[in-house]
Amino acid sequence: MSKYVIGLDYGSDSARAIVVDAATGRQLASSVKYYPRWKAGKYCDPAANRYRQHPLDYIEVLEASVREALAACPAGTAEQVVGIAFDTTGSTPAFTDESGTPLALLPELAENPNAMFVLWKDHTAVKEAAEINDLAHRWHTDYTAYEGGIYSSEWFWAKALHILREDPQVRAKAYSIVEYCEWLPALITGVKHSRDIVRSRCACGHKAMWHESWGGLPDEEFLTTLDPLLAGFRDRLFDKTETADKPVGTLSPEWAERLGLSTDVVVAGGAFDCHMGAVGANIAPHTFVRVIGTSTCDVMVASYEEVGDKLIRGICGQVDGSVIPGMIGLEAGQSGFGDVYAWFKRLLEYPLREILAKSEIIDNATKEKLIEETADQIIPRLTAEAEKLPVGENALLATDWLNGRRTPDANQLLKGTLSGLTLGSDAPRIFRALVEATAFGSRAIVERFRSEGVRIDHVTGIGGIALKSPFVMQTLSDVLNMPIKVCRTDQACALGAAMFAATAAGIYPTIEEAQAAMNSGYAAEYRPNAKNVVEYQKMYEKYCNLGAFTEKVLYSQAEKVLYSQAENI
Amino acid sequence: MSKYVIGLDYGSDSARAIVVDAATGRQLASSVKYYPRWKAGKYCDPAANRYRQHPLDYIEVLEASVREALAACPAGTAEQVVGIAFDTTGSTPAFTDESGTPLALLPELAENPNAMFVLWKDHTAVKEAAEINDLAHRWHTDYTAYEGGIYSSEWFWAKALHILREDPQVRAKAYSIVEYCEWLPALITGVKHSRDIVRSRCACGHKAMWHESWGGLPDEEFLTTLDPLLAGFRDRLFDKTETADKPVGTLSPEWAERLGLSTDVVVAGGAFDCHMGAVGANIAPHTFVRVIGTSTCDVMVASYEEVGDKLIRGICGQVDGSVIPGMIGLEAGQSGFGDVYAWFKRLLEYPLREILAKSEIIDNATKEKLIEETADQIIPRLTAEAEKLPVGENALLATDWLNGRRTPDANQLLKGTLSGLTLGSDAPRIFRALVEATAFGSRAIVERFRSEGVRIDHVTGIGGIALKSPFVMQTLSDVLNMPIKVCRTDQACALGAAMFAATAAGIYPTIEEAQAAMNSGYAAEYRPNAKNVVEYQKMYEKYCNLGAFTEKVLYSQAEKVLYSQAENI
Repeated sequence: MSKYVIGLDYGSDSARAIVVDAATGRQLASSVKYYPRWKAGKYCDPAANRYRQHPLDYIEVLEASVREALAACPAGTAEQVVGIAFDTTGSTPAFTDESGTPLALLPELAENPNAMFVLWKDHTAVKEAAEINDLAHRWHTDYTAYEGGIYSSEWFWAKALHILREDPQVRAKAYSIVEYCEWLPALITGVKHSRDIVRSRCACGHKAMWHESWGGLPDEEFLTTLDPLLAGFRDRLFDKTETADKPVGTLSPEWAERLGLSTDVVVAGGAFDCHMGAVGANIAPHTFVRVIGTSTCDVMVASYEEVGDKLIRGICGQVDGSVIPGMIGLEAGQSGFGDVYAWFKRLLEYPLREILAKSEIIDNATKEKLIEETADQIIPRLTAEAEKLPVGENALLATDWLNGRRTPDANQLLKGTLSGLTLGSDAPRIFRALVEATAFGSRAIVERFRSEGVRIDHVTGIGGIALKSPFVMQTLSDVLNMPIKVCRTDQACALGAAMFAATAAGIYPTIEEAQAAMNSGYAAEYRPNAKNVVEYQKMYEKYCNLGAFTEKVLYSQAEKVLYSQAENI
Repeated sequence: MSKYVIGLDYGSDSARAIVVDAATGRQLASSVKYYPRWKAGKYCDPAANRYRQHPLDYIEVLEASVREALAACPAGTAEQVVGIAFDTTGSTPAFTDESGTPLALLPELAENPNAMFVLWKDHTAVKEAAEINDLAHRWHTDYTAYEGGIYSSEWFWAKALHILREDPQVRAKAYSIVEYCEWLPALITGVKHSRDIVRSRCACGHKAMWHESWGGLPDEEFLTTLDPLLAGFRDRLFDKTETADKPVGTLSPEWAERLGLSTDVVVAGGAFDCHMGAVGANIAPHTFVRVIGTSTCDVMVASYEEVGDKLIRGICGQVDGSVIPGMIGLEAGQSGFGDVYAWFKRLLEYPLREILAKSEIIDNATKEKLIEETADQIIPRLTAEAEKLPVGENALLATDWLNGRRTPDANQLLKGTLSGLTLGSDAPRIFRALVEATAFGSRAIVERFRSEGVRIDHVTGIGGIALKSPFVMQTLSDVLNMPIKVCRTDQACALGAAMFAATAAGIYPTIEEAQAAMNSGYAAEYRPNAKNVVEYQKMYEKYCNLGAFTEKVLYSQAEKVLYSQAENI
């Protein structure tokens, strides 16, 4: 009899459930549900970079998506489901009461955004992040060391501190703090006390400054020096964290019923989407796995022998077991990738949306149709023309830092540059330079890993751009001088979660074995063109020069300046 | 009884005649005529940068425009015309026979482009310019010294040598060479021998390496070392040059009849358009006069006391009497000004012209109307929005070298840079940065004049952009921290020619007195805003850094490399 597992991928806007054959990875059915309150724009204030999500959104889509996916499977499938696992966005923390219930589920705080999950991209805690950095860099132990050396406003402690300071109502009820990817497994396994929530190695190691070498979370003195409001949280939080291949329990009777599954179903630990996505993309040592969308999330795993205790400078994080248990998970990424192309598209849309839209020559309906039809063709048309240009012919050279730089060496104050402009620099040439710039930014990350002693032999791509733009992927392969495989699945994160579910349920002894059996294979492979490699090597050196110059001269900022100015960005 | 003069301005596409009251500068009438063969695209090959003009074009528009302008004046005006003067484009030379007749007027060479005038922007002689530079910089005397140190393919000797090498038919007939601005006065005064053509100080000093200090033109040995084909020309050309305030003669009977004027009409010497334009714009020492269009031509005059024999480094040329007799004329300019804005407009037109133009939603006629209507509003709309942005708010910083850099320190291989890009960099912000960049480029020229000891107190603007864009002019005033006056006349060149005509005809003893009586006054004055001046000072320093970097690191080219590569640009 076949055994099935359910992979649950909780993104920024929606949640996806896939039902997978645990033996082969074959997907039987899937379902996507959008968070209803989020979709309605509730609890957010984009102008203030405040993005909150209500726990009820998560609960509702969980039930709906699992039921819908199961309903699309052959009869009897539900009975054969043996495991379930979640990946979610992160760091997306919420305050809980003593029972581990997110505060927004208490009637008196149901409409308070500070009682909800603070979505990863919420930037309300810029000041708190600056304070954490300042203190950590002066402290006897630099607690940011394994998180790239610069704590972000997007992360756990900054967000928690910001809300404690801002909201006395939440402060009065706040007992503990939970990450999104920890709470969902706790919820459906019926955890009754916040201390019993199984903590995610991935979330805590990457975002909560948890590390075994300093005994878990930062010490109480550090936290209370930061702000006395943090007093007591450390003891009420956790000492230990677990990798996501371990079961956190089985479905509670309530949730077994709500989902239409048995109480024997094993629930795996949670982790962040990109990390499980990397597993779903068949990550292994020496493979650089990239989730390529508006930005990139780049993940690697390295053996203890390869990395050991050594700190990899300038990446986002390095956490033992955050990706594959028994290996060091390494995270990097580019702050802008597809967003860079989207910026150029928006720029070119200016005459359409700001001028033509006001024309009185044609009626509004036709106008709108014409504008959308034209706008939709900008990227395909630019791609078709840019692709024809010979490599190295383009005098243009750009840096990719239009959204700052995440790695190597985070600096969110950096900005992009486009050089080599002539009166003949047309839109396809500029587009090509931007595509090359994002590839050079990728190369800089690869070079950093290598110079820090991490071997990279090949690249695996997942995410929208990996599947949709052969031009971008070929350029990337040429610039990196490495083959790039693109996974067949367009649901690598959910598939990765399914692998964790299967491992936690005992079908496979290790994640690696689950990967070997369940991976999706590859839809495409790009191989570097030797002639282009030579041209791009020269251009990459110029990119490094251009980058070093803009960083040093135009945006030279000591770290302190960086953070003292961060509020004014 | 009033006295009238005729100013004739011969541009790239058309010629303009204005009839002016010599006492007041008041314009009675004007006429513009387009060169018929040129307009039909004859004798040119834009792909090869070959631009030739037939002397018959000049003859035909001369007669037509003068007659039309006079016809629009009150009866009896023609009888009261006492002087006439030409300004033309340059360096625009042609080979002549012994009589001084351009070879294309000989029946057997009437259709040979090499027998015609080689328009200033013809770039067929890139190789010859490189050879001239190479030799001049090794020679005992650097004949390029007063022309900015880098001889251009747009100039007299390069063009002459190129044609001698290329065309045996022309070579066989070539006796002498004449500049456009010299030939027209010679033509209408009935000169019968090429040695009798009065040579223009302006043309020869700026473009033919003529300088008193080395006895006129470069020595015969230099020219024949360059190429034996040049042997003998020096002796057949000229030793002396004259300033344009001097009469070259009176109208020949033939031309008096053709123009409907008397044979008493005095014909002044010719000069280049921008130089007479500067006179028409009331140039005086310490005033930086700018003709602001697609590029800028910047002219100054300095007393012998101020400049003397001293070589001003890095400008285009310095010639005694090229602008106002008795003063050193100094020429500089930016290779791209309005062209930089036009480039951005073209870029933004991409979706309109490349995508929307192919839409099948609306009919072709409506589409064309919609595209043109939208395109026409791009610059006005960008201007309106850019103007609202506070100075210094813009993170963007650009250099203006999209068409290379003419001054300071010519380097046509330089390219433009746009830095400080973020995902929020929209079209108005980029446009503002480009406007600021062109102003910073202007500032760099001003700073060079000053560091070389030439005092600049105020600025006068003429040309399309000066009259049409208050935003650009205010930015320029703020960046330069100087008041800018914009001349009332939109025909400063023709008005300047009229001043030379009046002086040559003896109405005024000096050009300065003609200017005092005949100037047009000012249509606008821009004064620097003190707050913006402070912001722009900081930004200008960054502009200098950015420029120095791109020049040194991205486009570092020794002069030799510059010229050896020039052919491959």
